[in-house]
Amino acid sequence: MTDIEIANTIQLKPIGEIAAKLGIDSDMLEFYGKYKAKLPLSLIDENRLREKHLILVSAISPTPAGEGKTTVSIGLTEGLNRIGKKTTVVLREPSLGPVFGIKGGATGGGYSQVLPMEDINLHFTGDFNAVEKAHNLLAALIDNNIQSKTTSLGIDPRTVTWKRVMDMNDRSLRHIIVGLGGTASGIPRETGFDITAASEVMAILCLSEDFADLKERLGNIFIGYTYDKQPIYARDLKANGAMAALLKEAIKPNLVQTIEGNPAIIHGGPFANIAQGTNSIIATKMGLSLSDFVVTEAGFGFDLGAEKFFDIKCVKAGLSPSAVVLVATVRALKYHGGVKMDALKEENKEALRKGMENLEKHVENMKKFNICPIVALNRFATDTDAEIELIADKCRQLEVPMEVADVWAQGGKGAEKLARLTAKVAEQCVCRLHPLYDWNWSIEKKVETIAKEIYGAAAIDYTSQAKNDLKKIISLGLDKLPVCIAKTQKSLSDNPKLLGRPKDFIVTVRQIEIASGAGFVIPITGDIMRMPGLPDSPSAERIDVDKEGHISGLF
Amino acid sequence: MTDIEIANTIQLKPIGEIAAKLGIDSDMLEFYGKYKAKLPLSLIDENRLREKHLILVSAISPTPAGEGKTTVSIGLTEGLNRIGKKTTVVLREPSLGPVFGIKGGATGGGYSQVLPMEDINLHFTGDFNAVEKAHNLLAALIDNNIQSKTTSLGIDPRTVTWKRVMDMNDRSLRHIIVGLGGTASGIPRETGFDITAASEVMAILCLSEDFADLKERLGNIFIGYTYDKQPIYARDLKANGAMAALLKEAIKPNLVQTIEGNPAIIHGGPFANIAQGTNSIIATKMGLSLSDFVVTEAGFGFDLGAEKFFDIKCVKAGLSPSAVVLVATVRALKYHGGVKMDALKEENKEALRKGMENLEKHVENMKKFNICPIVALNRFATDTDAEIELIADKCRQLEVPMEVADVWAQGGKGAEKLARLTAKVAEQCVCRLHPLYDWNWSIEKKVETIAKEIYGAAAIDYTSQAKNDLKKIISLGLDKLPVCIAKTQKSLSDNPKLLGRPKDFIVTVRQIEIASGAGFVIPITGDIMRMPGLPDSPSAERIDVDKEGHISGLF
Repeated sequence: MTDIEIANTIQLKPIGEIAAKLGIDSDMLEFYGKYKAKLPLSLIDENRLREKHLILVSAISPTPAGEGKTTVSIGLTEGLNRIGKKTTVVLREPSLGPVFGIKGGATGGGYSQVLPMEDINLHFTGDFNAVEKAHNLLAALIDNNIQSKTTSLGIDPRTVTWKRVMDMNDRSLRHIIVGLGGTASGIPRETGFDITAASEVMAILCLSEDFADLKERLGNIFIGYTYDKQPIYARDLKANGAMAALLKEAIKPNLVQTIEGNPAIIHGGPFANIAQGTNSIIATKMGLSLSDFVVTEAGFGFDLGAEKFFDIKCVKAGLSPSAVVLVATVRALKYHGGVKMDALKEENKEALRKGMENLEKHVENMKKFNICPIVALNRFATDTDAEIELIADKCRQLEVPMEVADVWAQGGKGAEKLARLTAKVAEQCVCRLHPLYDWNWSIEKKVETIAKEIYGAAAIDYTSQAKNDLKKIISLGLDKLPVCIAKTQKSLSDNPKLLGRPKDFIVTVRQIEIASGAGFVIPITGDIMRMPGLPDSPSAERIDVDKEGHISGLF
Repeated sequence: MTDIEIANTIQLKPIGEIAAKLGIDSDMLEFYGKYKAKLPLSLIDENRLREKHLILVSAISPTPAGEGKTTVSIGLTEGLNRIGKKTTVVLREPSLGPVFGIKGGATGGGYSQVLPMEDINLHFTGDFNAVEKAHNLLAALIDNNIQSKTTSLGIDPRTVTWKRVMDMNDRSLRHIIVGLGGTASGIPRETGFDITAASEVMAILCLSEDFADLKERLGNIFIGYTYDKQPIYARDLKANGAMAALLKEAIKPNLVQTIEGNPAIIHGGPFANIAQGTNSIIATKMGLSLSDFVVTEAGFGFDLGAEKFFDIKCVKAGLSPSAVVLVATVRALKYHGGVKMDALKEENKEALRKGMENLEKHVENMKKFNICPIVALNRFATDTDAEIELIADKCRQLEVPMEVADVWAQGGKGAEKLARLTAKVAEQCVCRLHPLYDWNWSIEKKVETIAKEIYGAAAIDYTSQAKNDLKKIISLGLDKLPVCIAKTQKSLSDNPKLLGRPKDFIVTVRQIEIASGAGFVIPITGDIMRMPGLPDSPSAERIDVDKEGHISGLF
């Protein structure tokens, strides 16, 4: 059965029942249909966060199909609830780009899903759209100010770094020229679109603590310079009030349910390869306020999502996880050992042995943050016992606790052992997160530390544009911000073709974008694009809806 | 008090109470917060439509600030309910473009508003976003197919007419070049963005009868030609299933309330200057299924919205209004008599007398459709009795019943007289709508009939591009579709500077766009743009939100 077919067999509970499990009165909910609701920010209780257990789920370097990090997060949540731990899963919102592209939605899979999956994967409660509109309103105000005769701030159109965004995989929008067609239609200039998940407004939404913080951060967005080289921020265009108004609902986390009827809070949707890759601080804190355990995820591999989770989000919000679960799969490790995508179903111990160096590096990386690590093997039906035993051996050798989870096929039942291990590790954990770097270091030192320590790079190369960007960042006084590196998820390096555990490679920083509102800078490495493209045969072609409005083809 | 300040003084009823007035059980609603809900299509009862009264509200040629057509529609609805007629107002959804631009929202004004106004004017229930995403998914699939090596349909990029859309006044996006940046980022070609209100997907949503109809129409969208000159439709790209999936909630009408707690159904948002300018057929039929009177509106002046309402929507859906209310204002008539915007508050009978030729022409136009006409004078505080008497005289002379409505200041109380007149006219009306033209006529004859009969043009001129477009339309077999003319709303002519009742002018058809999915073609006249721009001092600068999330500056 496909994911949506499985989802359709489930009898959903009214969302008020799910809220009741968290002690929330129905009157506090803003319903979006019968099975989705927004939660008021007043449910956050800052005083209770430290008593609770935050479990981060991350992963080894994934195959293009993903390794089931979200699926394990959901299954583990079901498992923890099964063993009596009051647990909420806190996830990111899916982007339409992958839904219509190749990777599919982001609501788990099999018997470990959050529901209603078709709503969550399509427009959900409109948060992505609100981010997109707030972002593009600023863009329109910039070009309008450049065009204006009476209210001009003197913005030099050649210096404008603020692009537009669209929640779509649309490569043709990466590099465009706008403002053609004569004097009535703007000033021609080069610009482009990023995907909405990469929007600084999305990052701001995810890193804001409350409404006042949101508005101030929106005002701090850097957009370019005047002709006399003065920096211009969104507040100079009086844009942040209207942008915040567009986000007044989006700032509230969304409550849905898992297949087994446990609470799921889903909020914010930055990717981890091109953005900070984790749900909002508000959602995480709300989960911790309302239940004893929160399972959350950080996108793509540990090198991307988890590093940013620790060094940006946890530092900013004062969070420290009680356990960190690294998801590995037999098939991804074989892939890292050189097996092609279409042959991953066959047993191949030799490739597995070779590919396990990827796992080894990620486990080493985990230990650098002073957290309590676990490896979860996300079981696929084609995995053999011999393959699983090889991985168990490796984990014993690495001295990291490991458990197999069969969450796709069995839901929470398949995660009970993992849940027991996780609860034990979390409850015994006395570690306090140690960030990899100090925000006060120079940008170069921060980048070098991540690239050498986490990616395993030998050296860093800056293009001349990146060097200019560095100078600009220093002159703007923004060099004490953390770095949110954009890098391919397919490799530990910045070259998607280097699988396994690449060594002796150079990371190339192509440019450095400023996200002064979000509060970080974005060194862009290798050929990573902040606007993806569709594959030759996009999933969109197979998505359909019957005359009663039932959707098929979503996964 | 501003509109939002007035709105904030109103104690809203739970939306279930409003639904109960229409005989709808709460279980059938999909709530969006406490005060908005989507209605299932099953509430439409085709057998009961003919028994009910459909009241269309249109207007004379407006000033740039609008003449309160929506405000009168809402006030009239309150008035009809006050005199015991079970009435629902059925309106369009606001676009963000005017909200952040100059005209403001589209939820009425003063004491005649639909609520919650800030939600309806911002993202509402996400319908505009769904339309935008469905539209832009098709665009991404087109450019992806052009880029593809293995699945190419051989589309000639120079022939692609499908643009992208964004719900924003953003003139810089009118004419753009996409696909720059090398082989990985698409094929460079000229294209542009229209505002979402002008999207063919919006038109399709508004003209579809049900889900199956919607999907088929989406498949019929024409997008361009192959290199060997074969037409390509959305169905050739297998786009319509996913597009329909994106619209699965947007197809359902939205229920909200008026200030006096009467039901308002708001659904679909095409502008009338650049699109068909009226809410969805589904919403209109649902209103008629659920109450005895439906008050609805057709955008901008009668020459635009009402003509399209009659010749496209009513013909397609088999509707015929029982009464048509033409909204006039003293200030707009003075404006047509030559008074500048900043002097409209002063009495000026001479200018008013001159400007009334605009009213006269619209009344003449009303009579061409064999409907029962009424003139409603939307009173402003600065109107003098002498001015109002002049208009009353003119209406007596034109033999059209007229009533003054003071809906901004007094709400339904100020519309009771208008409500009595409207109810009487509607209940006594024995006319059946007579469309202006036969869909089977040639495109030229249809355009000529509208331009000469309604606009008052002396002749029609086609540019060479428009002539080529005509040939293309004929070769595609689409010349029997109705015409949805894009024209400025500021004048009866296609020249926004010709106020009053222009004569001896030539209408220039610049190009003709194909909307084969919606089922019409769009002759674009004069300099009208399908993507507006922001003014020098956009409303966005004055919109703000406090730390509790309360919005100010919306109107």
